[in-house]
Amino acid sequence: MSQATLREIDVDQLAALAEQVDTYLKDQIKHRPLPANLKEAISYALFGGGKRLRPMLVLHACQAVGGKQPGAMAAAAAIELVHCFSLVHDDLPAMDDSELRRGRLTLHRQTSDAMAVLAGDLMLSLAFEVLASNVCDQDRCARLTRELSIATNDMIAGQVYDTLPEWPVDEDGEELDEVERLELIHSHKTGALIKAACRMGAIAGGAQAAELASITDYAESIGLMFQIVDDLLDVTSTTQALGKDVQADADNGKLTYPGVLGIEASQDEVERLRVAAHTALEAFDDGNAEPLHTLADWLATREK
Amino acid sequence: MSQATLREIDVDQLAALAEQVDTYLKDQIKHRPLPANLKEAISYALFGGGKRLRPMLVLHACQAVGGKQPGAMAAAAAIELVHCFSLVHDDLPAMDDSELRRGRLTLHRQTSDAMAVLAGDLMLSLAFEVLASNVCDQDRCARLTRELSIATNDMIAGQVYDTLPEWPVDEDGEELDEVERLELIHSHKTGALIKAACRMGAIAGGAQAAELASITDYAESIGLMFQIVDDLLDVTSTTQALGKDVQADADNGKLTYPGVLGIEASQDEVERLRVAAHTALEAFDDGNAEPLHTLADWLATREK
Repeated sequence: MSQATLREIDVDQLAALAEQVDTYLKDQIKHRPLPANLKEAISYALFGGGKRLRPMLVLHACQAVGGKQPGAMAAAAAIELVHCFSLVHDDLPAMDDSELRRGRLTLHRQTSDAMAVLAGDLMLSLAFEVLASNVCDQDRCARLTRELSIATNDMIAGQVYDTLPEWPVDEDGEELDEVERLELIHSHKTGALIKAACRMGAIAGGAQAAELASITDYAESIGLMFQIVDDLLDVTSTTQALGKDVQADADNGKLTYPGVLGIEASQDEVERLRVAAHTALEAFDDGNAEPLHTLADWLATREK
Repeated sequence: MSQATLREIDVDQLAALAEQVDTYLKDQIKHRPLPANLKEAISYALFGGGKRLRPMLVLHACQAVGGKQPGAMAAAAAIELVHCFSLVHDDLPAMDDSELRRGRLTLHRQTSDAMAVLAGDLMLSLAFEVLASNVCDQDRCARLTRELSIATNDMIAGQVYDTLPEWPVDEDGEELDEVERLELIHSHKTGALIKAACRMGAIAGGAQAAELASITDYAESIGLMFQIVDDLLDVTSTTQALGKDVQADADNGKLTYPGVLGIEASQDEVERLRVAAHTALEAFDDGNAEPLHTLADWLATREK
């Protein structure tokens, strides 16, 4: 299929897969002895209508390398737990102080600040427990744990760059310009976890080194693209369509791609990255890699 | 040696071991790409004169089963990272709102609430990265990750029981009495991580199943003892001696052992647990287990 033609996403198929991930997550929580109010809090944070993008990337990347789904399900659940933990902590009064998330009250507004701190901590640590308790192949378990922990730490570093900036200098001792700062923030804040999702899927599927490298290229393209689209939606969408406050970035004085590059150049960059993502998948069997191709097109054109 | 005779702790030897753990931790942080202010924050939280009890337990438990120290050092560092993360988050305004920790400003007072949230998150996740990046034996790596993640989740559950209580009912559908609530809180909040420290040391040292069971018995005794002594110090010590606010528990209306059992019965319980800890070590070579024996006596009689 030509890269100029956008693939249509099969919404029903994606919903069915998201349902499988949710069922797996619910099962993990159900069997974990925890205080009832803590279980409620993490369930509220986890099952609030998220896109499940990262679990999809895990499962699709596993499929792209010809791996079977079951081995990747723990990785998919683990990475979603990390993603949701980061949202809960980012929303705290000490951080973004957000009232809405996915069209509902944020967890600390729904429960308390203390519960949101602890529920976030729990989700982060539970991610590693889910991997360690469910990935039987010890070698893969260790590799997946390493990928997830490194990505989580990079993500947190990105959050620090974004909200408490103290910029490093580049190799020549020069201060970073705005575009370099944006890249530094987002390759960490959003990119790291998206890259880890793809790589973890590939590792769970038993990828060879060359396959893992191609999947990594794909992941880096869609990771940056995802953030630029997010920034664009923040200036072009409505609170109703998005389910969270819009113009929040500009109001908080944050660096954004449309803010630095302009809207049109940001849209061009999205298109360049979409094509790069498809190109990275050329070595894979078309049928196996089809879901990743489709996701790239969907991420480039999503409206929420 | 008779259990009635208290062993004297070798302060210099313990300090030398703590120094090794600190050097290892500093090395891990030094080589981890992170924003400078985030590194400063986690260094402030990590190197503030903690007792390094949990790393000592890891290293001593490893020695008790005849294992070599180097394999346990990553586990020692990982568990200290988890312990310090929990202190940083517990001190937050949303939680205990503490001003002092180990005689210095708490991290959020020293930096900001946002930095303390993120630095805590980072330390938690870094614990898993340290394990996954440094424990070469993949089977042990997966087992250590499992121990640490389960203990961390139990610890967070204990924090919820302690600060946001919503009590479960017991097997007969009866509400828990105060002693049962205290045990539920502390077996989770303090006990879980102390148990994990001992078990991780034993696992890193290649313990057989029976050895691991004995180490677990020891750990459960000293874990509960540690908490009772902590509660006793909170009512009998001074802010100066302790380096943190005293009477904080009573002021916050928290359940404590002296509050529920009385001071004298709490002291009797400390003695009972001290003897039980020694008994659990009977199967081990006396020389190898000596540091664990000594730690039990020290924990029973510590004054800060």
